[in-house]
Amino acid sequence: MTSNVKTVNVALCGAGIVGGGVCQIIKERQEVFKTLGIQFNIKTILVRNVSKKRDFELPAGAKLTDNVEDIFSDDSIDLIVEVMGGLGAAKTVVFGGLKAKKSVVTANKALISYHLNEIEELVNTFSKDGSRFAFEAAVGGGIPVIKSLQRDIIGADDVMQVSGILNGTTNYMLTKMDQTGCSYEAALKEAQDLGFAEADPTADVEGHDARSKISLLCRLTLGVWIKDEDISCTGISTLTADDFEYAKILRSKIKLLGICKKVNNGTGAEIYVSPVIVPISNTISSTNGATNIVEVRSKYLGTTYYVGAGAGRFPTATSIVGDMLEISLNKSPKPFPLKQNLTQHTDYPGRFYIRINIRDATGIIRTVGAICENEGVSIHSVLQIPITDKQNVPFVITTDETLASKVKVVVDSLEKQPWCLKRPVALPFL
Amino acid sequence: MTSNVKTVNVALCGAGIVGGGVCQIIKERQEVFKTLGIQFNIKTILVRNVSKKRDFELPAGAKLTDNVEDIFSDDSIDLIVEVMGGLGAAKTVVFGGLKAKKSVVTANKALISYHLNEIEELVNTFSKDGSRFAFEAAVGGGIPVIKSLQRDIIGADDVMQVSGILNGTTNYMLTKMDQTGCSYEAALKEAQDLGFAEADPTADVEGHDARSKISLLCRLTLGVWIKDEDISCTGISTLTADDFEYAKILRSKIKLLGICKKVNNGTGAEIYVSPVIVPISNTISSTNGATNIVEVRSKYLGTTYYVGAGAGRFPTATSIVGDMLEISLNKSPKPFPLKQNLTQHTDYPGRFYIRINIRDATGIIRTVGAICENEGVSIHSVLQIPITDKQNVPFVITTDETLASKVKVVVDSLEKQPWCLKRPVALPFL
Repeated sequence: MTSNVKTVNVALCGAGIVGGGVCQIIKERQEVFKTLGIQFNIKTILVRNVSKKRDFELPAGAKLTDNVEDIFSDDSIDLIVEVMGGLGAAKTVVFGGLKAKKSVVTANKALISYHLNEIEELVNTFSKDGSRFAFEAAVGGGIPVIKSLQRDIIGADDVMQVSGILNGTTNYMLTKMDQTGCSYEAALKEAQDLGFAEADPTADVEGHDARSKISLLCRLTLGVWIKDEDISCTGISTLTADDFEYAKILRSKIKLLGICKKVNNGTGAEIYVSPVIVPISNTISSTNGATNIVEVRSKYLGTTYYVGAGAGRFPTATSIVGDMLEISLNKSPKPFPLKQNLTQHTDYPGRFYIRINIRDATGIIRTVGAICENEGVSIHSVLQIPITDKQNVPFVITTDETLASKVKVVVDSLEKQPWCLKRPVALPFL
Repeated sequence: MTSNVKTVNVALCGAGIVGGGVCQIIKERQEVFKTLGIQFNIKTILVRNVSKKRDFELPAGAKLTDNVEDIFSDDSIDLIVEVMGGLGAAKTVVFGGLKAKKSVVTANKALISYHLNEIEELVNTFSKDGSRFAFEAAVGGGIPVIKSLQRDIIGADDVMQVSGILNGTTNYMLTKMDQTGCSYEAALKEAQDLGFAEADPTADVEGHDARSKISLLCRLTLGVWIKDEDISCTGISTLTADDFEYAKILRSKIKLLGICKKVNNGTGAEIYVSPVIVPISNTISSTNGATNIVEVRSKYLGTTYYVGAGAGRFPTATSIVGDMLEISLNKSPKPFPLKQNLTQHTDYPGRFYIRINIRDATGIIRTVGAICENEGVSIHSVLQIPITDKQNVPFVITTDETLASKVKVVVDSLEKQPWCLKRPVALPFL
């Protein structure tokens, strides 16, 4: 078998957590790759600082450089692996690599979701020359969901909705809040202490990371690209321990989901990121800790789930090495085959949970009822956990089917009431 | 885009539930396929009885035949889809098709698991000429787990264990028994009335269907083929309502699983089918009804799950059409790349649940304790739900880590006791 082993020269851009994982997997599995007909030679490693000490053994013979031109100008390099992250140098690497007619593998969801159109044009242009672009690690870390969607589902089937826990940090925090009753602040501190959350946690807790990923999944499954800034995005920082107590009463869990779906008989697309009330009967509700899950609802297949580690050195690196193998074995599909002319609907229908923090007084229920009635929002139930502090009573209404826009007007009105202590929190039901 | 559309001539063998689904999906999605560069023409349909009425509209222009030679001798046919099932005519179709250098797609897990070696040889011989063999629908119906394993996981990663709910009929029955407390017989009758279970339910309830599937998954992931008849297989027909009551006490569910795993530092393989006590913290436990789930534990990726409909016209047909697309777009990987020299271990370690039905008497616990002690099996706990009938008391012991072979000796000894009403039921913990 090893007589026809092709050597694939690789430039690794980034030598951090994921880059180290890629090096280690390649080292440990090279003999298996040879039985498949290839071997990887990590020829060049692009880093910011060539003298910085790494937490892994650099591959034998690899040349460290801080100059990306060393890669673009090296004709022997077939494949670029971008694991630097961010929108700066990573963009230079990905765009420059494709233009230099090299195949590119990246884990960079932010880069792809921000520059999807440009990347797609580059890929369409240069794939004619055999170069390929793959990004399995960009969504769901180690879960091979991108390839399942691209290759197994969107051809044979018509995807109606994709919903997922796409950010492990926030899912870790929400699981903690659910299981211990702790505050948002305590859950964040613990996630930071454990290294799950960054010092500046904004990208995670405000849902921006999940937003990039659902944007990408929406492009892949519904065939329409909606820019990050056009996606309604609510994070988890306004959630309190009370919300988890109410969720239990509703036999549900609270999960930060990215959701995209076809609406209006397949002419429109809805997309948003929000904490969502998920009934415990749905597999999403029992996906805990840093685990990610993607639920795909499609016409013929029905509902499928893909569950696994959403981040981490080896899970992410496995996806990258999988992409490297597929490209090198010349089996990578052309990306983005699906294009559909769907109109984005910024509004969306659903049932909603609204938590209102009030100073206890008379007439509040009547006023809440009147505000909802004015907007045509029908109240499904009123929930009240035992009151412990009359100066700050969290109570919840759930609505019948209505529109997110109407709920926003209701929340705006409620916020203006003298007894309303802070802006009410509205969450859709799944 | 449509200027370069290649027509792929297809012979559909079998025009039942799944065959009808394949025809309908192709009809409805032909325009999408054209944008990918191909269209399917179902030219010939092989059936037993050409005059039988079908429950779906036959494709325009398709010729019905009961003679398989019409397919083998037709050089214009590129692709054979086998959805007849069984080991008779289906074998003729699959083997003959590969020998006639046509690509073959099948959903037939029994055929593949019984004839894996011969099929593999045929595929290796004829894939050189470009013909391909695919069988996504053979395991987990609509879940694209075979391709994820073959393409995304076994190259880049080292699979340690695969466990799955691989049979929807029995999972439907177990879910019913768990949720309603009904008997095995009542659950079977309901499944039969609903058309989930056959008049002769043996293949499902005795685990033979799940066994074919885990045999196949074992071959794919561990690289070793273990014949169906060499796989330890326990079905669900000895389970009673009591077992589900005891499972609740153990904060677990009972699921019929096929399990294969690497043991002895990667030199051995263990494989069995059995009802298993699954803790409610594992996603497998909440997979209910006819849904299938496959859990994959691998070295780098950790634990991933693939969940979806395990059977049914459209889920199964989606997998078949996905295979047809992939083969026609010339992207299908060569199957079975992984071969490992693992020794089968027919014994396996684990913790066990043993339910013993007794006629109440004194000295029973002492005798049970002595039997376990003689065999070196350590008892972890003794469980007793309230006794309603002193003539038939089900009680349960759980063991500490031991070997299946020792548990079997314990069960044999217990069965011989005068107070033991029937053979005790032993189930491993996941």
